[in-house]
Amino acid sequence: MPIERIAIFGTGLIGASVGLALQKHGYTGSIVGWDPNQDELAIAQARGAITSIVPDALQAARESQLVLLCGPVFTIIEWMDRLAPVLQSGQLVTDVGSVKRAICERARARYDLVHTAGFLPGHPMAGKEVSGAVNADADLFNGAAWLFTETAESRGMHSASRAVADGWRAWVGKFGCRLLDLDPARHDVLCAWVSHLPQYLSTALSALLEDEFPDKDEILAIGGRALREMTRLGGSPFSMWRDIAHTNSAAIAEALFALEQRLAHLRENLKTPELRDEFERANRFRGSMGSPSS
Amino acid sequence: MPIERIAIFGTGLIGASVGLALQKHGYTGSIVGWDPNQDELAIAQARGAITSIVPDALQAARESQLVLLCGPVFTIIEWMDRLAPVLQSGQLVTDVGSVKRAICERARARYDLVHTAGFLPGHPMAGKEVSGAVNADADLFNGAAWLFTETAESRGMHSASRAVADGWRAWVGKFGCRLLDLDPARHDVLCAWVSHLPQYLSTALSALLEDEFPDKDEILAIGGRALREMTRLGGSPFSMWRDIAHTNSAAIAEALFALEQRLAHLRENLKTPELRDEFERANRFRGSMGSPSS
Repeated sequence: MPIERIAIFGTGLIGASVGLALQKHGYTGSIVGWDPNQDELAIAQARGAITSIVPDALQAARESQLVLLCGPVFTIIEWMDRLAPVLQSGQLVTDVGSVKRAICERARARYDLVHTAGFLPGHPMAGKEVSGAVNADADLFNGAAWLFTETAESRGMHSASRAVADGWRAWVGKFGCRLLDLDPARHDVLCAWVSHLPQYLSTALSALLEDEFPDKDEILAIGGRALREMTRLGGSPFSMWRDIAHTNSAAIAEALFALEQRLAHLRENLKTPELRDEFERANRFRGSMGSPSS
Repeated sequence: MPIERIAIFGTGLIGASVGLALQKHGYTGSIVGWDPNQDELAIAQARGAITSIVPDALQAARESQLVLLCGPVFTIIEWMDRLAPVLQSGQLVTDVGSVKRAICERARARYDLVHTAGFLPGHPMAGKEVSGAVNADADLFNGAAWLFTETAESRGMHSASRAVADGWRAWVGKFGCRLLDLDPARHDVLCAWVSHLPQYLSTALSALLEDEFPDKDEILAIGGRALREMTRLGGSPFSMWRDIAHTNSAAIAEALFALEQRLAHLRENLKTPELRDEFERANRFRGSMGSPSS
């Protein structure tokens, strides 16, 4: 049974990009949108990311085969709680939350969410430093990994919900994603290193430069690609990263502390042969990433 | 008198890119190339970045109006010493060295370099994480700043050399660069923050990930743009960054230490309102950079 009725809760950058990607890859069903921000909804509709706007989110959820929750982690968790009592067997809720352990723990506690409807925890490794439906892009997920972190609870979903889950995974594949299945705790540790650490690092670097150079014109005039690139994520919105900091704080703190020590080590070895070793390790790491992104 | 005879010493990424940029923007004179690596020379010639290869570098320098020194800082300083005794009035030596105080101090000590020929200290704020003539690009400097750090000594150059210096600055403008004049010490401090800090930071992050994940496949499979971007400079060659670490170590150490403290502050505030303030500072910094580089 193909998916023909989708509700997207949160029609900002990610939610609207999903809508656009669905349309681009041949989805012909309905996509109803809901967002606390009416402007986001209007832009998402104007851009064709959703086919209609609904005044009553819970009613829209009841009438959909699949509900996609997009937004900061705590917003997703809130929606899980609100949706659980109104859903029926054969429906599916899935999400794009950046942290998965907290979300899977909440799903575990919501028998009605998981065993009436089904819940498929997901996370596309794609984004931008700018938010909003205005920046949505049908190709945002092309070439990215889309992670799923199923648990014993989610695996126990109804076969009718499972059919929707399988259908959703097929759509994600059509978006151009590599689908990967991971344990939620392992997901959070890996993301602390490859996503959260780079984000907080870029924020710290940008904030430091903001404080260090009250007259920014001087450094902006001379800065090149290195500066632009290493501070790009400094533009990311707090709202999303606050929830990540709260729900993955131990793993993030560990990664940050390790980097602090590494920077101190490099600073103490600017004139020793250890600097060469550090460059060689870094060169090896980049070498494994394949061709340069120049 | 237009510049018609240029010698490029060091025909790797930057030297060969200058040759290509000259040709692209209508230069019709000769460009002789010299490099310790015969392969670099052959590639630079095959790509049209130089018009001929010379066996005797000093002889080629004697016959050129302008000698461009490209390479790591200590290599440039070595060439300044070797060239000084053989040059004549009316010639000009200029360079692309990433650190300017050490180079200007050496120029100050070489009366023959500065007052027989002239010496114009320069630094294009452009580069790549990959080296070699094979990666050279006629548009590498387009939109970048090209910094000059003249001193009392360089300003005292012969009027015939000054004419060549003015001609060179005009070429740099044709490459699409913003020409900026700075004091050498200020140059080194600003570059420590906007160029050297981002580089050593990316090296440290890449080296840390190399050590932390012996099986890199796991993180490379899920990493997205943030990971690629924040580790891109991890591919940079040690040879160039060793000399920068040696000749600008105090300013680099200060910037690294400030960032270590900033990361610790962020780590200690993952769950406090200070995290919001830090994101707001970072957002302000990026806001001043104009449109996002997405």
